[in-house]
Amino acid sequence: MELLLLSNSSSDAGYLVHAQAAIRELADGRKTACFIPFAGVTRDWDTYETLVRDAFAPTGIAVQSLHRLAEPAEAARAIDAAELIVVGGGNTFRLLQCLRERGLLAAIAAQVRSGAARYIGWSAGANLACPTISTTNDMPVADPGGLDALALVPFQINPHYFNLVVPGFRGETRDQRLAEFTVLKPEMPVLGLPEGNWLRISNDRIEMGGAHAARWFKGADITDVQPGALSLPR
Amino acid sequence: MELLLLSNSSSDAGYLVHAQAAIRELADGRKTACFIPFAGVTRDWDTYETLVRDAFAPTGIAVQSLHRLAEPAEAARAIDAAELIVVGGGNTFRLLQCLRERGLLAAIAAQVRSGAARYIGWSAGANLACPTISTTNDMPVADPGGLDALALVPFQINPHYFNLVVPGFRGETRDQRLAEFTVLKPEMPVLGLPEGNWLRISNDRIEMGGAHAARWFKGADITDVQPGALSLPR
Repeated sequence: MELLLLSNSSSDAGYLVHAQAAIRELADGRKTACFIPFAGVTRDWDTYETLVRDAFAPTGIAVQSLHRLAEPAEAARAIDAAELIVVGGGNTFRLLQCLRERGLLAAIAAQVRSGAARYIGWSAGANLACPTISTTNDMPVADPGGLDALALVPFQINPHYFNLVVPGFRGETRDQRLAEFTVLKPEMPVLGLPEGNWLRISNDRIEMGGAHAARWFKGADITDVQPGALSLPR
Repeated sequence: MELLLLSNSSSDAGYLVHAQAAIRELADGRKTACFIPFAGVTRDWDTYETLVRDAFAPTGIAVQSLHRLAEPAEAARAIDAAELIVVGGGNTFRLLQCLRERGLLAAIAAQVRSGAARYIGWSAGANLACPTISTTNDMPVADPGGLDALALVPFQINPHYFNLVVPGFRGETRDQRLAEFTVLKPEMPVLGLPEGNWLRISNDRIEMGGAHAARWFKGADITDVQPGALSLPR
């Protein structure tokens, strides 16, 4: 099982530019990608396909968006034939709702677990690879019919991670929000993955790329970790 | 139907201190409150009851927390007998999960709609009074079994509202998150209620208290409104 899970898509250099080398390495010569645009809400799916197609062009990977296939059976066949599955960011609830409604979650998980397809996801697409979407930052603008997701990795990711205290804001900080999760699910590790970082997962091996430290949360324990090989907190 | 919906609980003056005059006015002589602490996650429910009891002490209202009644039937009777229902903030998903699991949502809605009880809620407790919890800022750390809520008011509230752009954060701003909601539900108005503000709702009349402007979102329309009488955006 081969995955590339990115915290975010955009940077000062442009859309997915910071990720190009990692995408090339993950693709390892594969030339076609099945793109899942369903997290797009304010960005419509046609526009999203074009954006990702252009961003992937320098890697030589041709991108085809799944929303072009209106029939669920046709979409399921596209998943079963995919060599790269690319899941874009946006709203995680909407992404999960669209995939559940179309009955595609099991097909995606099976295709990646078997090694037939490799998986690239950023932001909502990284959340989707986790056991649940419970550590998304997104607003629940759509009902996903349950929070369980692909469970391709045995831990949770919190993308766009930072723990800034915003002046005048009396809601929870990010660490306080994640502490709510770890109180309710003390056995499940959560990785706070900062902007610009990514995870390269090869079966049980986890390698973090990017410039910043990340933070593991498990129960009441918090551990900061540097880029490089990561192991799950015990 | 009489409601007091606050954006937040804490201020530099102390817990709920900014809300005391509004709580007194809403209570209008009622001396007992049924407190719903279920949004508390990192704060345990016993501690939460004490916090709210102390905060309500100057108003002369005695607070009893619903979590003391372990039997659902007993809890339902407490709702049916309540003259004030007070719903505290914390995690909106956990709040809705606990109330749905205990089968108490319909009883609370009926008691407030009939006028038998008045309703006070802050943060998650304000979200709960809306048609759904889709405009909460909280992390989905628990599965609420659906997003529909009490529907005591015909619009959505986004508490702790601000639209700050956090330096280095490449996720969505608050307005971008709310735009995702209004794209999917263009007919449903959302009020961005800033820290320190509250709504006093008396049947169809909405009065906003506090020092700050708030923001209505409906479809693609955005309107800033000052404290005082509010009407729903057309």
